Amino acid sequence: MTIPADFQDLVDRPLIAALGTVRPDNSAQVNPMWFDLVGDEIAFTHTNFRAKFRNLQKNPSMSLLLVDPDDGYRYLELRGELSRIEDDPTGAFYVHLGKRYGFDDQQPPPDAKDRVILYMRIDKATGH
Amino acid sequence: MTIPADFQDLVDRPLIAALGTVRPDNSAQVNPMWFDLVGDEIAFTHTNFRAKFRNLQKNPSMSLLLVDPDDGYRYLELRGELSRIEDDPTGAFYVHLGKRYGFDDQQPPPDAKDRVILYMRIDKATGH
Repeated sequence: MTIPADFQDLVDRPLIAALGTVRPDNSAQVNPMWFDLVGDEIAFTHTNFRAKFRNLQKNPSMSLLLVDPDDGYRYLELRGELSRIEDDPTGAFYVHLGKRYGFDDQQPPPDAKDRVILYMRIDKATGH
Repeated sequence: MTIPADFQDLVDRPLIAALGTVRPDNSAQVNPMWFDLVGDEIAFTHTNFRAKFRNLQKNPSMSLLLVDPDDGYRYLELRGELSRIEDDPTGAFYVHLGKRYGFDDQQPPPDAKDRVILYMRIDKATGH
């Protein structure tokens, strides 16, 4: 699934994305997330013990909303699923994201040993 | 449930909120939404035939994310449920929201006869 060309900028820019997941009790959750496009997947940094990680182990569904900060009525919705999880024990991907988001001196987080990279497969991309 | 006082401004400001809901197939959905605080509930304008309305009829869970546009690392998460639905057949609440969001000449929408007001009961409010 490709990103519509006229909304590619929303993926390229370091925006705070709103990630929707479903809790084990089938209630909705939305969290602000750093992200980057890696190949044709969206990648997030996370730890392997937080609630969202457990949510995704039970229900892999992910929905991502990217709103243009310069025009709140222009946005991109990505729907998909958690496709894979990679360990990031040095926090290298966390550092990559930190730098993407403007923290030039980003250091690995204290919880680096528990860091993972969550990859979201994009099944549907809709720009408005 | 009250809003933490030091995050009240995020509810008072006309921000585009990210509303998370759960689809009938238990997948996640996130949509950008106008909102207002009415009493101690969050109110949205919607139509009675869109997908999100059907989602909420099956699973009333709602999660709302409000991110400070001036500081993407400051945000408020509201969790709760659809508490009630009111008809808005003249689109009056839609007009109210439009004006709140800066459209001084907001007119009722063409689909006014199908407009409803969705009320979200806030069960948990967490500021970061």
